This record gives sequence, structure tokens and C-alpha cells, in this order.
Amino acid sequence: VSTTSSAVAVQDGLATLGSDALRIMDGLDALYRHWASLAGATRMLFPPLVRVDALDRIDYFHNFPHLGLAAAPLDESRFSELAASGLGSDRLLPGALGASRYMLPSAACYQIYNHHAGATIDAPLYVTTTARCYRNETTYDDLRRLWGFTMCEIVCLGEQDAVLDHLARFRQRVGDALETLGIGTAIEKAGDPFFDRRGAVAVLQALVPTKEEFVCGRVAVGSLNFHRNFFGERCEIRLGTGAPVFTGCVAFGVERWLWMLLDRFGGDADAACAGLASLHR
Amino acid sequence: VSTTSSAVAVQDGLATLGSDALRIMDGLDALYRHWASLAGATRMLFPPLVRVDALDRIDYFHNFPHLGLAAAPLDESRFSELAASGLGSDRLLPGALGASRYMLPSAACYQIYNHHAGATIDAPLYVTTTARCYRNETTYDDLRRLWGFTMCEIVCLGEQDAVLDHLARFRQRVGDALETLGIGTAIEKAGDPFFDRRGAVAVLQALVPTKEEFVCGRVAVGSLNFHRNFFGERCEIRLGTGAPVFTGCVAFGVERWLWMLLDRFGGDADAACAGLASLHR
Repeated sequence: VSTTSSAVAVQDGLATLGSDALRIMDGLDALYRHWASLAGATRMLFPPLVRVDALDRIDYFHNFPHLGLAAAPLDESRFSELAASGLGSDRLLPGALGASRYMLPSAACYQIYNHHAGATIDAPLYVTTTARCYRNETTYDDLRRLWGFTMCEIVCLGEQDAVLDHLARFRQRVGDALETLGIGTAIEKAGDPFFDRRGAVAVLQALVPTKEEFVCGRVAVGSLNFHRNFFGERCEIRLGTGAPVFTGCVAFGVERWLWMLLDRFGGDADAACAGLASLHR
Repeated sequence: VSTTSSAVAVQDGLATLGSDALRIMDGLDALYRHWASLAGATRMLFPPLVRVDALDRIDYFHNFPHLGLAAAPLDESRFSELAASGLGSDRLLPGALGASRYMLPSAACYQIYNHHAGATIDAPLYVTTTARCYRNETTYDDLRRLWGFTMCEIVCLGEQDAVLDHLARFRQRVGDALETLGIGTAIEKAGDPFFDRRGAVAVLQALVPTKEEFVCGRVAVGSLNFHRNFFGERCEIRLGTGAPVFTGCVAFGVERWLWMLLDRFGGDADAACAGLASLHR
């Protein structure tokens, strides 16, 4: 056990970050905030739990049941037994749990659409938020695939063109930044189950990709996501015309950026922070 | 729905914070970091989920089963049913959940003791961490009592005298700061189930209180906690002599500080930020 850890320790898909790693995380936060301000995005922080019915209306339980983690209270009828003897086990069986109205978020931007449910968007709206996200993955891979991780998103809600412009600007901005940092990345098209299930016609009709990823060493460190009017429809967020709003987001997996920077700068936190700061000075 | 919220919205014990509130949260983070640096504390970030067995060994399921929230995956045998029809409900019943090895943290410092399990502490060790914490409360009260909230802690692990000195310094430091801000608070003794259960003899022998709270308008905005060698014993963290380490923490409920500052400065984020900054310039 390192008692004054400055480093990173990952076990069972969960990361412990020491002071050096946190300085890099601070540098990443500053960079994402800078980018958000360039987009005119309002910074918001949303509840760390998502209502089950809010996820149900965006087909979450259809598409991602395997990733989901519910926040479940313990069953009251078990309290006296627990108080007498403790748990005495490394796990809680379902019979010890009560009903759950909340899930842990698996992406940061769901809460943005949820928050704006029922709203009318008269001009393009840009919102940025960072959230701790959770995915019940079957395998882990150091900082590259965690149960609990941090996601920063910069979202546009508006007309289709505004959303596509937002994504195009970030495609360039993030690509330039990674190049400046000397990090080799490729932009790759990726699938997204929100849309893939809509069948071949929808896929053929897609003139623009729904998801592109910034891939570094086979790891997607960021993505550009065009949701068309899916969240607008499901969450009843409307344009001034009454039509469902279009949405799109740029998303960063923050611990993956941390991994990428530790790799690029050989674990030198000062050099990583200087590199990040050079991108917005 | 306020689409470009700068304010605070609380519903069902969950808070949404807009940009003004987040500026105050940033100011609080800077203040707590300043205080942590005065204490020589190393900044760390711990996993956002706590192992069930790590909580069991500190009597969590004896003392706090009612507050607990498990992170439970969905039962695999239900996936195809969910994929076919979605959930169609506002809650997941226990039968839809799988076994859980993790709980959401209800306090930030548990992970510090957990991380140092098995370690030997030769000189006083100071660690600071901030965590999103969760409590399955039966009633909510705006920012003052939330299901999900932020806790910042500055912990000392060492000999009893080092821990008591740490707490005494923060008793003075935090009290002075609140007075400088023009916020009326009282320091009140409080109970702590970790120790109250140890019976009358232990209580009589307690020459120092185990818990004191900074109370503002009946709300505890911070606490000073002396755990004696409880976590040292349970997590097998030892002094150089081989004896269990003593621990103590100062803990801040960050959203409660936000509430207190919004109240003190009449919702003026600039004034609140200036007040906070004046404390460490």
C-alpha cells in the first residue's frame, strides 16, 4: 500500500487517483471548460441518479440493460437481522434489496434532455456537464475501461444545422488539439444502438454518421454523437415550430484522456499539464 | 423549465445546479483545498463505489442499513423481456435486480481507511478527498438534505495527539472563517452511532467528544469527528508501534455550504465568491 500515493491504482474496474493524476484531471477540466466556453455552453450539474422512468422513455432498458446499475435501498424487513449480525458476506443478494426508482447514469447527457423535457428551444442551446458514470462491464482494462468513470459532454439542442455545425467544429477542434499534443488518433465511425435498431432503411438514409469516435490505440477517448431528433421526440423538447428538437453531443471519457496523457508524457504530470495548458493560452 | 438555468432546482432530494451555483461550488472547492494544503494533506480521489465487505467490517450494516444504497445490476434473465417491452414502470422491483457487491458511499472518508487497510503509518498522514455521497433519507429539505450530495473531508491518521491537534486546528479555522463571512454558527456536540453503541462506560471515559458539528440555522454544515482507533482496528492500519492508528476527520457538506452562502449573500454569486476568496488571500 502506497500511503501517500501520487499515482494511479486500478482494481476490479475502479480507480484510485493520487495527487499527480488529479492535477492532470484538473488540466483536463480546464480544457473542456475552455472548449465549452468557445461553444457558448452553459455549465450545469445534474442529479447523480437518473429516474427509472426517464430512462425507460429513451429505450434504455431495451438497449443497455446489461450496462445498467440500479441504486437500490436495503429491504426494511432485513434491518434488524443486519443490525444483529452485520452482513457477513461480500455481496447483497436481491432478496436483501428494496425496489429502486433510480439508476446510476451511464452517460452524462441523458440528464440534459431529461432536465429540458417539455421545454421549447427558440435558439440553439448549448449545455456542458460532467458526471460520474457507471457501467456494469464484464471486463475491465485499467483506466481504459472502468465500472465508474467521468464523462464530460458539450451538448447542442436546436435545428439540425446548428447541431451538425456544433459537431463539425468539435471534430476539428479536438482533432487539432490531439495533433498539437503529439497524440496519434484516428476518427472512426461507430454504431449506436439508439439508432441501429431502426433498421436498414434508416441506416441507408443516414447521410451523416450518428457516431464518430476519436480513437487512440484502439481506445475511443471521445465521441461525436448526432442523435437526430430522438431525444427531442422522446423528451418532448420542441423547436419554436413545434417540431422535436435535434440534439448532438461531444463526449470525453476523462479517465481515458488521463491514460492517454500519462502514456504520451511518460507519466510526467508537469509535462502533461503544460501540454494541456498550451492548448488554451 | 428554465432552459439556461443559473439557479438551483431541487426535486425529490436531488439537486440541479446552474452556472452561478457552480461558481460558488468552485469557490468552496478552492477554500477546502486551501485548508487541506495548510494541513499538509495529500489530495486523492477514490472509487465511487464501496465494496460491501469493506463496509461490513466497519459495522455499516449494523449502524446505517436504512441509509444504504446498493449498486445492483439488472438480473440477466430479465434482459430479453426488457429488450422486448422496456420497463413500463417508475421502479425496478427487487426481482429484476441481481446480486450487488458494491454500495454507494454515504461518507467520503470510508474509502481513505479502506485504501490504507494493512498499512503502517510512521508519521501523521493527512489525506483530503471529495466524494459524491448518497443517503436513502426518508425526508428531504432543499439543499439541506439530499439523496445525493457532495462531501469534502480532510482526514488525519496517526497518534491520538496528532489527530486531536488536527481537529482543534480545524475547529478554530472553520469557526474563524464562518465568523469572517458574517455567518452565525454554533459548535454543538453530536452523537455518532459508531461509538454510542459501545455503552455507558465508553461514553463516561470519553474525555473528548467524538463528534462536534458546526450548526447554522439548525443545519450541520460541517463536523469534527474523532474516531479514536476504531478504523485503525477494523482496517488494520497500524502505527509504527504496531498499535492501531487513531483517525479523525473534518467533513464539509458542500451543498449545505452552498445553501448557507446563498442565504448569507442573498443569492448574489459574485458576493459569495468574493467572500470565499477573501478567506485565503
